[in-house]
Amino acid sequence: MTDAAGLPTFDDIAAAARRLAGRAVRTPLLESADLNARTGGRILIKPEILQRTGSFKFRGACNFIAQLDAETRARGVIAYSSGNHAQGVAAAAALFGTPATIVMPEDAPAIKIDNTRGYGATVVTYDRWRENREDIAAGLAKKSGATLVPPYDHPWTIAGQGTAGIEIAEQCGEHGVHPDAVLVCCGGGGLTAGIGLAIAELSPGTAVHPVEPAGFDDTARSLAAGTRIENDPGARSICDALLAPGPGILTFAINAHIAAAGLAVDDAAVGEAMRYAWRTLKLVVEPGGAVALAAVLSGAFVARDRNTVVVLSGGNVDPATYCGIIAG
Amino acid sequence: MTDAAGLPTFDDIAAAARRLAGRAVRTPLLESADLNARTGGRILIKPEILQRTGSFKFRGACNFIAQLDAETRARGVIAYSSGNHAQGVAAAAALFGTPATIVMPEDAPAIKIDNTRGYGATVVTYDRWRENREDIAAGLAKKSGATLVPPYDHPWTIAGQGTAGIEIAEQCGEHGVHPDAVLVCCGGGGLTAGIGLAIAELSPGTAVHPVEPAGFDDTARSLAAGTRIENDPGARSICDALLAPGPGILTFAINAHIAAAGLAVDDAAVGEAMRYAWRTLKLVVEPGGAVALAAVLSGAFVARDRNTVVVLSGGNVDPATYCGIIAG
Repeated sequence: MTDAAGLPTFDDIAAAARRLAGRAVRTPLLESADLNARTGGRILIKPEILQRTGSFKFRGACNFIAQLDAETRARGVIAYSSGNHAQGVAAAAALFGTPATIVMPEDAPAIKIDNTRGYGATVVTYDRWRENREDIAAGLAKKSGATLVPPYDHPWTIAGQGTAGIEIAEQCGEHGVHPDAVLVCCGGGGLTAGIGLAIAELSPGTAVHPVEPAGFDDTARSLAAGTRIENDPGARSICDALLAPGPGILTFAINAHIAAAGLAVDDAAVGEAMRYAWRTLKLVVEPGGAVALAAVLSGAFVARDRNTVVVLSGGNVDPATYCGIIAG
Repeated sequence: MTDAAGLPTFDDIAAAARRLAGRAVRTPLLESADLNARTGGRILIKPEILQRTGSFKFRGACNFIAQLDAETRARGVIAYSSGNHAQGVAAAAALFGTPATIVMPEDAPAIKIDNTRGYGATVVTYDRWRENREDIAAGLAKKSGATLVPPYDHPWTIAGQGTAGIEIAEQCGEHGVHPDAVLVCCGGGGLTAGIGLAIAELSPGTAVHPVEPAGFDDTARSLAAGTRIENDPGARSICDALLAPGPGILTFAINAHIAAAGLAVDDAAVGEAMRYAWRTLKLVVEPGGAVALAAVLSGAFVARDRNTVVVLSGGNVDPATYCGIIAG
């Protein structure tokens, strides 16, 4: 049901929501008096850390695998991922009894590799800086006949992530709030595109801002330039989940239409946000999952006198990394 | 509206819920596919860590201070607490513009002392093992005319905590679940008594089990004996929030009627539950707040084929203590 350009539409997201009912968690919308006081605005938190597998990625993976026919599913699925998509695909595949093979960088957080194996997937590791994960995955898929589940640049993946946007709109309604803005953690842009499509349909007038790590603000720069721009290959960030080389083709085509200006936050602001989430919100957030919160806490986004939804997109992080950060 | 024996009734809890509306957080009811699979039952999590001040204690404190007249409030409130009641009273007092003085053990977690001061209260410290906190608080109250807000053994405090029980019953209904059991973290017994009264009214047939640290299972032993028994003064536990010397007079009078058998978990099981909450649930739970979860994970409570509500009562813990535990 994608449109003529092959892009997903709101109807695809609504269909994904029906597929995910009873399979994915309808994560709550949380509010903190402290965070409101600190920002001078009203902040509503969408904690996708409470989603199955600890990130929103389960939504897209589940929507994707649900649409494969039985014969295709039997040949298995394959994915490449730094960790959250890996876990999402592994858990969704397990739900449908589908074998899963996941190509992961060898320096991915151990918790993400362990969890992916824990959901029953076979993990193949590679060197993030020297090998091409797309090539490895394509080679494995060709050999086994498995179906590749793209991490962001596919209409089914985007539509699945967009179900979080439907929930945000519905839950804001339940709270009697019209959001002025939704801040979305952004890597390849799938979550931003999905939420953006849903919000454009259900909450007109709400700005959807992608938030990226400094040095990986490819979507922000691409939106400003009106064309896809890649990151400097020498860039580094603690946000392991958000290190995509550049915007996706489909995701950028959508985000160019529906996203407001992109924001960027540095590692220090991310660490501050993780500590705040730990200390005050009592939520475990990984670096890449904390960038939207970092934007409101650091002032990169001015939340004063506005209603702002902040997505916490993932919470999978190694204990040593986590403790190094929260001990501050 | 207490009954003839001075005990709170369900009507007091319903009145407290009206007082708390818009002041306290209606914490969500969460569910984890992993936790269900691991226990073989259906577990519904009531995360009071998401309550204002990071624990349920705000409920009782707010219900108490809301009932003081303006003149009494102006003289201030006073409380003694190892930390969560301290923060609850401090934050509730700030909400009503009431000065607060809190008597805290000098070895309380620094985060609890800092937060209590952060809410604007004056903190007076004492030696937990050599001085009597009730005497210190009574002396200060006499001098200033401030009103003592008891941590658990007062009808208003108990009624406030019971609002969590109303929410549990309502939210289980929204989930279409009749709970077989509710497991409540238990120190002085106020949360158990409040939730127990609400559940007895709204969810008949549901067993409410207090869960305590090993060595501090005074309520379990008192329930079994039919009379109040204190803990061995030499007992130690990492659950700093649950070190009450024995059951309260009012709380035990209620719990003797409405509570099912008490359960106890050792420090190792508590640590395991905190790690599980961090790793899988993405929730920050302090030792004393994790005992009910520890009961289902350790098998001290058999959750298989049952619907069980698990209360996470608090999440205030120092970074060093927390990291020592989650690094396992």
